Amino acid sequence: MFTLMSILLRSLLGGVAIWAVSAGADEGMWLFSDPPRDRLKQDHDMTLTAAWLQHLQQAAVRFNSGGSGAFVSDDGLVITNHHVAAGSLQKLSDATHDYHRDGFAASTRGDELPCHDLELNVLVAIEDVTSRVEMAVTAGMPPEAAATARRAAMAAIEQESLASSGLRSDVVTLYQGGAYHLYRSKKYTDVRLVFAPEHQIAFFGGDADNFEFPRFDLDICFFRAYENGQPARVPHRLAWSRQPIAEDDLVFVAGHPGHTDRGDTVAELVSMRDRRLPFDLQNLNRLEALYGAYAEEGPEERRQGTADLRGVENGRKARQGILAGLLDPAIMDGRKRAEAATRPWVEAELAGRPSPYARIEEAQAMLDRIAVRHRMFEGATGFNSTFFTNARMILRLTAEQARPSGERLREYRDSNRASLEQRLFSEEPLYDEFEIVKLADSLTFLAAACGIEDELVQKVLAGKSPRDRAGELVAGTTLGRRPAVGDGSTRPDTRRELAAGGAAAVAASPDAMLAVAALIDAESRSLRQAAEAADEIKQQAHADITRARFAREGSAMYPDATFTLRLAYGTVTGSRGSNGDTAADPAGHDDNSSAFTTYGGLFSRATAKRDAPPFDLPPRWQGVRRSLESDEAFLQTHLNFVSTADIIGGNSGSPVVNRAGELVGVIFDGNIDSLVLDLVYDDVRARAVAVDAAGILAALRTVYRADALVRELVAGGGTQR
Amino acid sequence: MFTLMSILLRSLLGGVAIWAVSAGADEGMWLFSDPPRDRLKQDHDMTLTAAWLQHLQQAAVRFNSGGSGAFVSDDGLVITNHHVAAGSLQKLSDATHDYHRDGFAASTRGDELPCHDLELNVLVAIEDVTSRVEMAVTAGMPPEAAATARRAAMAAIEQESLASSGLRSDVVTLYQGGAYHLYRSKKYTDVRLVFAPEHQIAFFGGDADNFEFPRFDLDICFFRAYENGQPARVPHRLAWSRQPIAEDDLVFVAGHPGHTDRGDTVAELVSMRDRRLPFDLQNLNRLEALYGAYAEEGPEERRQGTADLRGVENGRKARQGILAGLLDPAIMDGRKRAEAATRPWVEAELAGRPSPYARIEEAQAMLDRIAVRHRMFEGATGFNSTFFTNARMILRLTAEQARPSGERLREYRDSNRASLEQRLFSEEPLYDEFEIVKLADSLTFLAAACGIEDELVQKVLAGKSPRDRAGELVAGTTLGRRPAVGDGSTRPDTRRELAAGGAAAVAASPDAMLAVAALIDAESRSLRQAAEAADEIKQQAHADITRARFAREGSAMYPDATFTLRLAYGTVTGSRGSNGDTAADPAGHDDNSSAFTTYGGLFSRATAKRDAPPFDLPPRWQGVRRSLESDEAFLQTHLNFVSTADIIGGNSGSPVVNRAGELVGVIFDGNIDSLVLDLVYDDVRARAVAVDAAGILAALRTVYRADALVRELVAGGGTQR
Repeated sequence: MFTLMSILLRSLLGGVAIWAVSAGADEGMWLFSDPPRDRLKQDHDMTLTAAWLQHLQQAAVRFNSGGSGAFVSDDGLVITNHHVAAGSLQKLSDATHDYHRDGFAASTRGDELPCHDLELNVLVAIEDVTSRVEMAVTAGMPPEAAATARRAAMAAIEQESLASSGLRSDVVTLYQGGAYHLYRSKKYTDVRLVFAPEHQIAFFGGDADNFEFPRFDLDICFFRAYENGQPARVPHRLAWSRQPIAEDDLVFVAGHPGHTDRGDTVAELVSMRDRRLPFDLQNLNRLEALYGAYAEEGPEERRQGTADLRGVENGRKARQGILAGLLDPAIMDGRKRAEAATRPWVEAELAGRPSPYARIEEAQAMLDRIAVRHRMFEGATGFNSTFFTNARMILRLTAEQARPSGERLREYRDSNRASLEQRLFSEEPLYDEFEIVKLADSLTFLAAACGIEDELVQKVLAGKSPRDRAGELVAGTTLGRRPAVGDGSTRPDTRRELAAGGAAAVAASPDAMLAVAALIDAESRSLRQAAEAADEIKQQAHADITRARFAREGSAMYPDATFTLRLAYGTVTGSRGSNGDTAADPAGHDDNSSAFTTYGGLFSRATAKRDAPPFDLPPRWQGVRRSLESDEAFLQTHLNFVSTADIIGGNSGSPVVNRAGELVGVIFDGNIDSLVLDLVYDDVRARAVAVDAAGILAALRTVYRADALVRELVAGGGTQR
Repeated sequence: MFTLMSILLRSLLGGVAIWAVSAGADEGMWLFSDPPRDRLKQDHDMTLTAAWLQHLQQAAVRFNSGGSGAFVSDDGLVITNHHVAAGSLQKLSDATHDYHRDGFAASTRGDELPCHDLELNVLVAIEDVTSRVEMAVTAGMPPEAAATARRAAMAAIEQESLASSGLRSDVVTLYQGGAYHLYRSKKYTDVRLVFAPEHQIAFFGGDADNFEFPRFDLDICFFRAYENGQPARVPHRLAWSRQPIAEDDLVFVAGHPGHTDRGDTVAELVSMRDRRLPFDLQNLNRLEALYGAYAEEGPEERRQGTADLRGVENGRKARQGILAGLLDPAIMDGRKRAEAATRPWVEAELAGRPSPYARIEEAQAMLDRIAVRHRMFEGATGFNSTFFTNARMILRLTAEQARPSGERLREYRDSNRASLEQRLFSEEPLYDEFEIVKLADSLTFLAAACGIEDELVQKVLAGKSPRDRAGELVAGTTLGRRPAVGDGSTRPDTRRELAAGGAAAVAASPDAMLAVAALIDAESRSLRQAAEAADEIKQQAHADITRARFAREGSAMYPDATFTLRLAYGTVTGSRGSNGDTAADPAGHDDNSSAFTTYGGLFSRATAKRDAPPFDLPPRWQGVRRSLESDEAFLQTHLNFVSTADIIGGNSGSPVVNRAGELVGVIFDGNIDSLVLDLVYDDVRARAVAVDAAGILAALRTVYRADALVRELVAGGGTQR
């Protein structure tokens, strides 16, 4: 499955390698403000109109937790993936309700469950603010000063926009500083859970089938956006296609690809291959063992840990795929040849200025030197506890308030305050034992990565073992909501009080976790400053390269993914299967060359795997399996399909629409060959995997009997349940 | 569970840190040739007689695959742990029989299953050969020459002994060169599987309960040693105690603790803490994710991968425990203080010679510099495939034959030839897809650890990605037995042919894996030579320290564990429970302060965990559960118990005997607090965990109805089934 863990884990390092890419075939993650009109006309005889684009743009939804979705009724109903919803489902659950495992269906609107900290965004306006941002940085400015000035200009634009429009306002860096766009988004913060299937059917085949096709997952979830306590009346929503999608059809994907590295220079790719990915994998493998062991402790521990476990498994498999790409001479040599071909004329074009490639290489070397320490402290990899996350946020929130918005750490700018508080004050329950296990493990990793004799590490551990220290810190903090214990009592939660009390209240607080956040803050900030300065050098150099290429190659370029709204398109067509099962399927349902799988194929695969986990069906499905297996129409209904659309993590939950702009599917994954799309586009083997809209309706009708929901989807809303 | 993975993974680096430790309380892993007679007399009023010792020594069995056991009938019946047997059970299984998961019971002796490569040893004679080994090394010899000379002396002694006695002969380094003993062992290579319970009951509670107490595992397995095609008539076997063991009883453990680090200097501990253990954990976490993902692919993949998965989970948890100990200031500061107190007078004693502590520190720094590369190439961590293991063994076997036995790599000495061939020609089936997955993963790790630009890494990968190269190498090798495919055809197995053909046949072979083994051989050998030279320096320095301590402190010392037979003793008594479940057990069966658990407690724990894996009972147990739950005598039968005996990994399967030398239990684990026994003894919280002999009989009688086996155990043999 596609998640945004990649972005989250990348932290700041290397997050700036955005790039203008020349596109071929069905390639491209295009800006809605600069769509590939000519290519679509030429290759697919499709004319993009402004109205068509605007409708799709404003029906598309960004899940701030990392993912995509779309409005599918006038009453604010949103479809996304179960795995995009995983965090929200987990946070809504408790020892007696496991919505992540068992699913959920609201009987009436009154039963819809308010999420603890979910924010949805809809992009409503795009404005080019490149010249204003560029003006802030003058020639010869040292990198630290340039980074600060750029940040200040962006914050000022955002603050003005927020004040004048009331909309969420983000200045987005595109084409690596070739362009800066102001994105204004309508924000929904009252979001409620409407329907989720069981995890077993949403993630049938588990980690084994993850990133594979043929595939059989009902990876969907429905939320509803509310405003003023009422279902939001939304101006744009996708109609549910009455015509199922078919082989060779043209489809469009509107979603939020998180991050790609197609514009990285070879120096950056080498660093990613030799340093960042091995470090990421080391971290993820460790967490996978840790969460797996915790989940084995018992049913309640499994409930608490499953969402995290799935997240790291997924992140591990995705990174293995990217690393495999970087270790594949066919790909790496291609990138080297391309750079060797481009570099001379780019450098010639910029005659008189130092080579941008050399500047990037130097800046990357600077980043490499501090990378591990930066990740451990500023990236908080050494402090894996939500209590710590809250402590740092409160510490910095209160400290940054004293400065002008433009001079603050970027996430603390005024225009981001509401979104930040949405996260900080999340009502998700925190479990002491799990927090201790995570923190003890990460403190151990900190000691290994930075050396236990390191002065700051010694101070953090305070003369205790990681396990003892973790226990002490969790016992000594009140920065989160704990579920009530057996006798109904609970511990206080002082987050709002401290945040409201400001720096003085924080300084006076006896909270142990807050003290640790304060203890490492100077070092963390200093590492961040160094990283941002190096990033600024890279950013300027990349902008130079981009401008040179723009000048020479003209348009038909799209920027690397940045978790902002993009338009992709492709053809519904199969690929060589990659899930390793070459045995013929007796039912013929999962022919590897087909673009589709069916419910019949689902049952065949469960049987072929002897219904052993992760190929077991949830109880509800087991209960109706016999009757479904005699329903030939149901068996032949499409469940999942693939296309050549150019997508990546963050696109999960993206609506797939036909030429008429009607919903025909929901992206939830790419196949194993698609993992290299981080580096290069491929339409021979790489495929985007979607849940088929027809399959969704069939399951809702036949298995879940969710009649009201089906009526709302088919009618497009307005039908009060 | 205790396994010898620690030893296997440690490879050569750091494997020489053996030490003389002064003992207190029930501490000590004592030599049978120098048992703690005075302490036992004084503390427990127990007189050790020569006959008692000899009987126990010769009833004890070493599993060459890593573990311990004991003869329990005159007809060569051996008891050990299910997890010691795991590799053998796995190798005996195929796509239609999963003995590891489902267990096995031979109906008659004719049904007992011959193992593919299991070798058992019984220690029959011990001879002190210290002076002869020491004479080989003269003052001023450079380390490389000294290491070679020492190895030659040891090989000569072994070869002479083998020739004269016909017994397996090993010169064992004890007290770090303070002593060298020649161990002569009777060897059994025709070993057959008699009885194994299901994995689920042998490992009830899984990774969650592993290294914990209270505990409820029937972790046992029975084999039989054969000679000349007949059950071996053994002169010493343990009688099954008719009197169950009770609280506060004195018990003895005869087994093969694998490795301890109690004699390491602080410099060595720091290296272990900062380098070796983090590297081990990185490797194990990665393998845990890999094997876990492979097992999820389907039932057959789960069958192939489970034993490996359990092994790495176990190794990971054990290392986490040791690392936690090293990161615990209470333990590390204790070791620093002890060294600070000892070092001045040891150095004074050796006046005129350079400080042994400083020599060790220097040698350790040398080892640290090459450690990762040594592990990747010579340790074969970068080549994780049994095909590679076989390729290297054939390559080196044929190459080393040309040299005199004493000058060869130590494992290729003549006296070890038979044992080596037992491994090399194992009939275990190898599965191409699993071998490719393992090899691709380890080649990727090799590229990350040594750098993909490294010249040798480049040659290994031969211009391909790790996955492609792994596929090519596995497809291109015939050095192992593959199961027949669907049409009954199989690929050739050329191991015996090549080994018999010698260096010329190897040189002419087109085998791809053999070519890789040859490609990295020079570098691997050179790394090994450097490591052995550094080890020699450490060994001489440790010997100096040991001699100084012997001189000052006298006897009552025991050497660090070396996977040779040792005697431990202790008291049956509970500890503070450590499995994290503080909730009271309604049946009162797993009171944490008790030394015992019962079958009633087993059922209570399954119920408390809702029978969810890993707390589910196997089908056979579920079938009789209701009737067992109404059998109060069965419910109260002891299943597991703990004692203060000083044990560690390798002791798994060790017989626990009472004062009369009768079997009362079988060691299978230590509790979580026992993991630091690698570093220091503790009798407050650390406990050895055993399966109770009474509980074994009860299960065999009541659940398995294994009447013939029970008769043989109770009668002590002679009863033909």
